[in-house]
Amino acid sequence: MPSRSLAKLTKRTLPLSRVYRLLEPGPVVLVTTARNGRRNVMPMSWHTMIEFDPPLVGCVISDRNYTFGLLKATKECVINTPTVELAAKVVACGNTSGARVDKFETFHLTPRVASRVKAPLIEECYASLECRVIDTSMVAKYCLFVLEVLKAWIDPALKSPRTIHHLGMGEFMVAGEKINLPSKMK
Amino acid sequence: MPSRSLAKLTKRTLPLSRVYRLLEPGPVVLVTTARNGRRNVMPMSWHTMIEFDPPLVGCVISDRNYTFGLLKATKECVINTPTVELAAKVVACGNTSGARVDKFETFHLTPRVASRVKAPLIEECYASLECRVIDTSMVAKYCLFVLEVLKAWIDPALKSPRTIHHLGMGEFMVAGEKINLPSKMK
Repeated sequence: MPSRSLAKLTKRTLPLSRVYRLLEPGPVVLVTTARNGRRNVMPMSWHTMIEFDPPLVGCVISDRNYTFGLLKATKECVINTPTVELAAKVVACGNTSGARVDKFETFHLTPRVASRVKAPLIEECYASLECRVIDTSMVAKYCLFVLEVLKAWIDPALKSPRTIHHLGMGEFMVAGEKINLPSKMK
Repeated sequence: MPSRSLAKLTKRTLPLSRVYRLLEPGPVVLVTTARNGRRNVMPMSWHTMIEFDPPLVGCVISDRNYTFGLLKATKECVINTPTVELAAKVVACGNTSGARVDKFETFHLTPRVASRVKAPLIEECYASLECRVIDTSMVAKYCLFVLEVLKAWIDPALKSPRTIHHLGMGEFMVAGEKINLPSKMK
């Protein structure tokens, strides 16, 4: 049964110039990949913005992870941002390998068809970024992929997403209050 | 007047194997640099862990920033982690250029002598990582420096530091509650 498009559901397009505002605070994200009927979901915290627009993202994915091979072969992924309600599923995805289980089925995550890549969006996440690998020159040395975000989706209803931030060893910080300061920085 | 060593004050050595737990949650940090009697402080959010131990950090610093030249020339910096009490000073550092003012003096930040690099530590920050640039091959294309953390300092009294996380356009998220989950991830 084919998945429905996320665009028909609760998400809206987010302008690419605003993508940095999702990743710069450093949330744990779920990286999805797909190849030859297999698909995977992997939690990731080792990412950084590299450029504003078009948005470029650097991410480090160990070659011990099943996602590494899928990403290297397909050069496509989706970066999905979960909130604290999904924290237990995020950890479950990290505790298992996609080489052995389909994490969408096992952990009841809903895949949706992306518009620019073959990797699926995760409906339960409040934002999803469809990405293409544009530079693999740092993969051999650092497992560092450079991604370009091609299309961004966001749940417009969620104004203050309670993202989770990995402190290591099973500990996570949940996004707290917001403050505003007279910054000239973008 | 020479600065005193931070080691004599409130900070303790943090094992290098634990450095990732400081940076992985994605806080805004203050990067300090020094050269020929000049020094600078720059807020930065575009960073990622690359390796656990020895800790490697990737960071993107625009060539429009005064810090870029200092870092490229000296290949040394300190990554200092402020908490929310310093938020106004963090923004002030971002709103001004080190080419024109000494931000330590202007914003009343206290420099301390580092042990492995010439760049100063910031006493008011709860953690400081002395770093050396080990790879500049991605600087021309992405302004991406790879740093190795040589020495790490932390205030052992602060168990739940209220770090700040940049959402863009003057908006910051302050670190909220902690949760623990049965994760197998490091």
